[in-house]
Amino acid sequence: MDRSEIERILSEHASGSLSSGDAAAAIEGLAYDDLGFAKVDHAREKRQGFPEVVFGLGKEPDQIAAIFGKLVERSPNVLVTRTTPEVFGILRNICTDAEWHESARLVRVLRKKDDLGVGEISVVTAGTSDVPVAEEAALTAEAMGNKVVRIWDVGVAGIHRILSQRHLLKGSRVVIVAAGMEGALPSVVGGLVSVPVVAVPTSIGYGASFEGVAALLGMLNSCSSNVVTVNIDNGFGAGFAAALINRKWKD
Amino acid sequence: MDRSEIERILSEHASGSLSSGDAAAAIEGLAYDDLGFAKVDHAREKRQGFPEVVFGLGKEPDQIAAIFGKLVERSPNVLVTRTTPEVFGILRNICTDAEWHESARLVRVLRKKDDLGVGEISVVTAGTSDVPVAEEAALTAEAMGNKVVRIWDVGVAGIHRILSQRHLLKGSRVVIVAAGMEGALPSVVGGLVSVPVVAVPTSIGYGASFEGVAALLGMLNSCSSNVVTVNIDNGFGAGFAAALINRKWKD
Amino acid sequence: MDRSEIERILSEHASGSLSSGDAAAAIEGLAYDDLGFAKVDHAREKRQGFPEVVFGLGKEPDQIAAIFGKLVERSPNVLVTRTTPEVFGILRNICTDAEWHESARLVRVLRKKDDLGVGEISVVTAGTSDVPVAEEAALTAEAMGNKVVRIWDVGVAGIHRILSQRHLLKGSRVVIVAAGMEGALPSVVGGLVSVPVVAVPTSIGYGASFEGVAALLGMLNSCSSNVVTVNIDNGFGAGFAAALINRKWKD
Amino acid sequence: MDRSEIERILSEHASGSLSSGDAAAAIEGLAYDDLGFAKVDHAREKRQGFPEVVFGLGKEPDQIAAIFGKLVERSPNVLVTRTTPEVFGILRNICTDAEWHESARLVRVLRKKDDLGVGEISVVTAGTSDVPVAEEAALTAEAMGNKVVRIWDVGVAGIHRILSQRHLLKGSRVVIVAAGMEGALPSVVGGLVSVPVVAVPTSIGYGASFEGVAALLGMLNSCSSNVVTVNIDNGFGAGFAAALINRKWKD
Amino acid sequence: MDRSEIERILSEHASGSLSSGDAAAAIEGLAYDDLGFAKVDHAREKRQGFPEVVFGLGKEPDQIAAIFGKLVERSPNVLVTRTTPEVFGILRNICTDAEWHESARLVRVLRKKDDLGVGEISVVTAGTSDVPVAEEAALTAEAMGNKVVRIWDVGVAGIHRILSQRHLLKGSRVVIVAAGMEGALPSVVGGLVSVPVVAVPTSIGYGASFEGVAALLGMLNSCSSNVVTVNIDNGFGAGFAAALINRKWKD
Amino acid sequence: MDRSEIERILSEHASGSLSSGDAAAAIEGLAYDDLGFAKVDHAREKRQGFPEVVFGLGKEPDQIAAIFGKLVERSPNVLVTRTTPEVFGILRNICTDAEWHESARLVRVLRKKDDLGVGEISVVTAGTSDVPVAEEAALTAEAMGNKVVRIWDVGVAGIHRILSQRHLLKGSRVVIVAAGMEGALPSVVGGLVSVPVVAVPTSIGYGASFEGVAALLGMLNSCSSNVVTVNIDNGFGAGFAAALINRKWKD
Amino acid sequence: MDRSEIERILSEHASGSLSSGDAAAAIEGLAYDDLGFAKVDHAREKRQGFPEVVFGLGKEPDQIAAIFGKLVERSPNVLVTRTTPEVFGILRNICTDAEWHESARLVRVLRKKDDLGVGEISVVTAGTSDVPVAEEAALTAEAMGNKVVRIWDVGVAGIHRILSQRHLLKGSRVVIVAAGMEGALPSVVGGLVSVPVVAVPTSIGYGASFEGVAALLGMLNSCSSNVVTVNIDNGFGAGFAAALINRKWKD
Amino acid sequence: MDRSEIERILSEHASGSLSSGDAAAAIEGLAYDDLGFAKVDHAREKRQGFPEVVFGLGKEPDQIAAIFGKLVERSPNVLVTRTTPEVFGILRNICTDAEWHESARLVRVLRKKDDLGVGEISVVTAGTSDVPVAEEAALTAEAMGNKVVRIWDVGVAGIHRILSQRHLLKGSRVVIVAAGMEGALPSVVGGLVSVPVVAVPTSIGYGASFEGVAALLGMLNSCSSNVVTVNIDNGFGAGFAAALINRKWKD
Repeated sequence: MDRSEIERILSEHASGSLSSGDAAAAIEGLAYDDLGFAKVDHAREKRQGFPEVVFGLGKEPDQIAAIFGKLVERSPNVLVTRTTPEVFGILRNICTDAEWHESARLVRVLRKKDDLGVGEISVVTAGTSDVPVAEEAALTAEAMGNKVVRIWDVGVAGIHRILSQRHLLKGSRVVIVAAGMEGALPSVVGGLVSVPVVAVPTSIGYGASFEGVAALLGMLNSCSSNVVTVNIDNGFGAGFAAALINRKWKD
Repeated sequence: MDRSEIERILSEHASGSLSSGDAAAAIEGLAYDDLGFAKVDHAREKRQGFPEVVFGLGKEPDQIAAIFGKLVERSPNVLVTRTTPEVFGILRNICTDAEWHESARLVRVLRKKDDLGVGEISVVTAGTSDVPVAEEAALTAEAMGNKVVRIWDVGVAGIHRILSQRHLLKGSRVVIVAAGMEGALPSVVGGLVSVPVVAVPTSIGYGASFEGVAALLGMLNSCSSNVVTVNIDNGFGAGFAAALINRKWKD
Repeated sequence: MDRSEIERILSEHASGSLSSGDAAAAIEGLAYDDLGFAKVDHAREKRQGFPEVVFGLGKEPDQIAAIFGKLVERSPNVLVTRTTPEVFGILRNICTDAEWHESARLVRVLRKKDDLGVGEISVVTAGTSDVPVAEEAALTAEAMGNKVVRIWDVGVAGIHRILSQRHLLKGSRVVIVAAGMEGALPSVVGGLVSVPVVAVPTSIGYGASFEGVAALLGMLNSCSSNVVTVNIDNGFGAGFAAALINRKWKD
Repeated sequence: MDRSEIERILSEHASGSLSSGDAAAAIEGLAYDDLGFAKVDHAREKRQGFPEVVFGLGKEPDQIAAIFGKLVERSPNVLVTRTTPEVFGILRNICTDAEWHESARLVRVLRKKDDLGVGEISVVTAGTSDVPVAEEAALTAEAMGNKVVRIWDVGVAGIHRILSQRHLLKGSRVVIVAAGMEGALPSVVGGLVSVPVVAVPTSIGYGASFEGVAALLGMLNSCSSNVVTVNIDNGFGAGFAAALINRKWKD
Repeated sequence: MDRSEIERILSEHASGSLSSGDAAAAIEGLAYDDLGFAKVDHAREKRQGFPEVVFGLGKEPDQIAAIFGKLVERSPNVLVTRTTPEVFGILRNICTDAEWHESARLVRVLRKKDDLGVGEISVVTAGTSDVPVAEEAALTAEAMGNKVVRIWDVGVAGIHRILSQRHLLKGSRVVIVAAGMEGALPSVVGGLVSVPVVAVPTSIGYGASFEGVAALLGMLNSCSSNVVTVNIDNGFGAGFAAALINRKWKD
Repeated sequence: MDRSEIERILSEHASGSLSSGDAAAAIEGLAYDDLGFAKVDHAREKRQGFPEVVFGLGKEPDQIAAIFGKLVERSPNVLVTRTTPEVFGILRNICTDAEWHESARLVRVLRKKDDLGVGEISVVTAGTSDVPVAEEAALTAEAMGNKVVRIWDVGVAGIHRILSQRHLLKGSRVVIVAAGMEGALPSVVGGLVSVPVVAVPTSIGYGASFEGVAALLGMLNSCSSNVVTVNIDNGFGAGFAAALINRKWKD
Repeated sequence: MDRSEIERILSEHASGSLSSGDAAAAIEGLAYDDLGFAKVDHAREKRQGFPEVVFGLGKEPDQIAAIFGKLVERSPNVLVTRTTPEVFGILRNICTDAEWHESARLVRVLRKKDDLGVGEISVVTAGTSDVPVAEEAALTAEAMGNKVVRIWDVGVAGIHRILSQRHLLKGSRVVIVAAGMEGALPSVVGGLVSVPVVAVPTSIGYGASFEGVAALLGMLNSCSSNVVTVNIDNGFGAGFAAALINRKWKD
Repeated sequence: MDRSEIERILSEHASGSLSSGDAAAAIEGLAYDDLGFAKVDHAREKRQGFPEVVFGLGKEPDQIAAIFGKLVERSPNVLVTRTTPEVFGILRNICTDAEWHESARLVRVLRKKDDLGVGEISVVTAGTSDVPVAEEAALTAEAMGNKVVRIWDVGVAGIHRILSQRHLLKGSRVVIVAAGMEGALPSVVGGLVSVPVVAVPTSIGYGASFEGVAALLGMLNSCSSNVVTVNIDNGFGAGFAAALINRKWKD
């Protein structure tokens, strides 16, 4: 929090130009570290078990390092998504617990491993090429205290593959399905389970897949009513939402 | 189930051209009423508390009536979405419990009202014109055994309106947000709560809203990680997914 | 054929300004009836078993009647697609054999019923609302001398429905699959059979289905290699292509 | 097949928690090699004459090599599409029969050369730049036991070029046409033959060709009823579908 | 011209606040009748043989009548495009020379019929449904002093139809081709002639024709270098451009 | 404001479960009339000279009447946009000052007519058909206390028309330009003035205008740096923004 | 100005083939330096406080240098946008006052620093990655004589961040908001202030952000009436328009 | 021409299986050199003054060289578009007359320089960055025997620049206008001249220009009736069409 800002608010309050309520709200609003180029948000800090996350794409290595440095100081679990081995090298120097996950292009610090979910989370892919996105989802869900079951390469063209995994799906509180091309797998999985399915379109495909648009539209139009969708290649968001769905509610 | 089909399967089995396993699977596969134009699915029947649903759009009134007739025989709660007062007139004659919900254009039979959720579900709209879609979500969630809190017309252009409802949001296990035009409300709500947010883009708007596409894209690209999305105007799907998220897990 | 045109060609030939080859080609090119607004093509006439077809959409009733009149004179089987009961009334007066098919909005004359295929053609729909398009395909295939198996409402959200029909699919030389919304059914069917699958996207759906575009993209991106696609709602084209595939080759 | 999985199924069956039918189905469902990142499908194995195929795009070289290794063990004919000379180097070491096809960027093992078709397959291109896609189609069709006729660079702007090849087209049981830009050639070819035409849009063009979308739309809207379409640049799919169409039926 | 405006300009000039040049330009700029809702342009008036044109779509009948009234006073030839029989009734009362053209939905006054072209203009359609757009082009070209050859329903699926009309095309100084669906005909015609081809996509089609977009893209990507394109259904623009191309240059 | 809500907040505050600051904020957040289906916003009320606005599209007549009734009680100037003569009839009964503006489809109450701008606002259209949108802008700007200059039908195809109006443009503090079709006029106007230009694309056009998209893209890509853009047909937004730009700042 | 052109005009005038008015207009039209590949515009020169601008993208370094050389001779403030450090090296040699701004990729010469605005301009970003675009806006506004307040990284997912900056926004005559992804921030800011908001969509995001399209649509559909929009990543245009809005009017 | 093909045709003719007409047509159809990967078209050869053209994009250097070698043997003027300096090096060795045009990326052989046009062709650009496309048009038109006037950088934001060039435009038989961004210049030029305008959208721009789509749509929707359009960046097509328009007709 920025001390001079607090002082400014307090003096405005003392002079009567700011009510107590507004002053309190303004101070609460300072609940972030201001790095100039970024306001690192602390408001989420109190919620147990949430990892802190840095979206790496489009940030300079030194910006990532500065934000990461702030986060690892006060959070046990931290994720840096869409980054590079080079950035990992820098972050490893800041926090030796940092792990590099090659396929997901993700750095993770996982110092707290409590089990916070009511059940398991299955993460399913249609093909081998969808694994990096699915791994991002799986690693995120684990960082938020969940047990994850990975089921790779069970696309609908060989329907017996997913049917043979039905016993795994049936033990899950929520299922994540990553698929590119026509994105049909979430609809099939949705019909096999009675829990929410979080569908992640991937940009895998060519031509009229339009870098994931075909899969995205397929998922949005799913005839299975239990399917919800996130952005193309948004493994992190799928893992995050699935973890919230699986979380114990007010026990 | 179709008796002649069962007999065919059994005789193929007896003759040895069908293994026991295949025969059993084939018989299980007959778990629907075949009306010719529709195969009314019974497989979902065992799962407690699910309403049976007829998607009314594009079906003839007599097709809807035939399917509805099958469903009310064996399910306490039934929904017919995207339908008309005329169809309601016909269905009321089949089942006098049927209710007509004008704004959502929906027929509902609600004979079983157990509370099956772990918490409440908030349903929020950005504007008055989004209410029909939101009502479809709310009516669905209620039919699946949930308490629903309705919060209408709190769009982001007057941010104090949603902020003043924060106490309602905080008591919810899941929040549904329906918004048209720029579809910004789910992102703001997502930042105010720590539960899943199911975003429903509506086709409200004009010009570059492209009948809900602008809102859909806004929600898919939400910077709040707890937002998942369903199809444009898909209030039913949002209510259904929210009910699954709120459902008690294996008690 | 237009007599004055033939004479013009012959006189040009006689005068030496047109070679014999060019004259012959020009005369062959006259192989159509010229109604002014339409050139009714006779070149296809020799090929056995092809129905003559009038695409009704966007033509005036009297234009349809004039073309139809020419066609029934010389072809045993004639189709008029995308038309109305009103037009049917007119055509019935021209040819009392004409049948009206309500769901497909199609007029058919079927006076020759030889079996010209090497096997059967299955026509499959994902939902009840896809039946009109599928019927157009089925009626076309029948008019071209094929036995057709109709399998309605077996969409992927209840995967056991299509699995239970596998024995029907396995007897087919080619399968037509009509589906709207996410259009996933052709991929699943494609994985179950080893014959060509002709996928027809339908405009059934709403919101991000974009009137059949989602289904079309799903089919074009199918992970099943035996799936080929036709235009949205093009039941006629699917039936026509399937009939050509099923046709006996040079026996 | 995964032995421990089979044992798990058998013991569940022995304990009575799994019926015989379910157990048999589950075991059948294990009909693939599980490489972790991929489930190599054996179910297709019985069908005579199908090549095994690896879609190379987006897979790591060692993943391709591992899958390829499994496939060449049990299949005489194997294709690896969309790959590189570097990968070919690796695969050549695994199987010395492997051929490199430069223009199609494709590795092929062709150890079984039976003629399985009822006729010939013509593969036609509009321009020189469409040849790589067309070659992929031709090589695939050959690997599936077909005689292929190649007709390159006969686009519609010089209509005499395709007309002069009419004698070749007339001997074909099915014609594949690859075209970019406006994609008009399949419509013209469709009007010249009475067999199915499989149209492959290519991404050749610039500006408003939108990387093959213009050609794709042209083909989907073809006024020739015998044209079916596959994805942009999907030479493999076109060749595969054409081979199925040409295949002898149940002899 | 607006008298008070001229006076304002002159007095500003007299007072020295406006230079002679600016004053002259300003007066020249008044070369239109200001009807309040419309500024009827006279600047084009001097160019011999141009018809005056009112684009009817989106204008009130009394607005059309007012503009039409001004135009027929000083121009021998006037067109009103995209209008209705009702409007024609009103315009006929203003000018008894007005003709109604049903298929093109166009009112024409044609009092001057000089031949202003160096050659003929061929207007060609792919199908019967394209005729209204083509008629708009033909009627416009005639109103601008051209001889027009109409060639209807010669689409590429029956290539012999257009080939048999080659002798007509060869006598034309410019060819207009109207086509919907895949829009392939301009490319074929372009290859048959050595004069400019003006391609008009029509909105005829369904599904992936996207109301003329497929045809438009086909024409923009034509592999025939002599094809230029106008907007979807813009028969008027095609006729106008063709007339300018055919016009004698400075004789 | 909702009394029971205030009481709830106060009692929560008294019991210590709500801080003073939060309570104050919550009460401030109640600054709207809650009509159930709508929360009529009062927060904007204090800002001098702003009209209250009801966006009529998609609201029921009785909803509009209820909101309108609330607004005319406390605001001198009220607008109801995108509405009908029927609704006007109802509103006229509520407030006899209401005016009906036919071309803009807008109801206006204008009881306060102070001049609040620093200069004039010019509203310009490319064609006659753009006038309704432009009128909406002009009526809005007037309701916000501005003098408006209307310049209709000066599109770029007759460039002398806009050049002859340059003296009017030069006296304006801000210029609104409404144009459909290619939307080129804002760029030309932008180059003629040194004040902000608010561009409004209209849905006027056909074919590849895509209901205003072509004009919208033209304006977004304007090579004149002083052009900003609002949504297609958003005359109200253009008038509103122009009024804010023209407003005296802190005098 | 090009001397030989002036002479040509004068001699045409003397010979009577050009009126005085046309000659004067023609000479005025020569108010640019003609570099062959570019016509450097002088007409804008007289307007006080405008920087001269070179859009660097797609121009050769020596073209930029030549234009820049002309501009710095007669303008105190010059901007070169979308350029590179390499070009900066060349420009620095031409004018040692040139500054390099790394994040905005912009060269600026700022020799005149008068304060020309009536208030301040706030420039706000949703995230860290939007800063480069926002900096381009800020640097432009400064070059046009404005005081700029920078507020970075206050996106709507943490709504308290923007609320805590409300005191800064309230002192501004105009606010620029740069946001990618869902582009929701301008709507929220628009509701907090009563001045114009210039929204700049950025291309930050992935998948269904479509390189800024989602943000652009969000802004065009903003429910806050005071939001106007510029092109994706057009920081320069936003800064330019904001400066014009903030400029003192005719004092 | 392929000798063995001719012999095959003749022997089929002799045996009676081919009519004289068909044989003649077949031989005429051989009027191209078959290089295997390309059929070099000779049919266009007779038409005076047409350059032979190779579209370089997507062809291998040795393919270009082989085609080029065939063309320079029999045509005085040859163009190779969209190529590289490396390819130029190879072609120079084949024909020392070849010229390299850097900005248009084009190789030209221009050995015959007759003037074949009835007037001049003006080529106009909106900006400096549009010059490469415009140069391609200009070089093509020159190769087809035309005098070309180049007018660079006269975009509509400084309308006096194009107005000052009006005397040049007025001497032209046809005008080519290349513009990116909003593509407004053809509409303005179209209003200034009474000859055809060939509009070429360029891919210059960013963000919502969508690589030339905005400009393309602007041109297709031009309110100037004399504007026709070619594909994005298709300078060659514009030059070719303009040359045909300018060509003397049958003298």
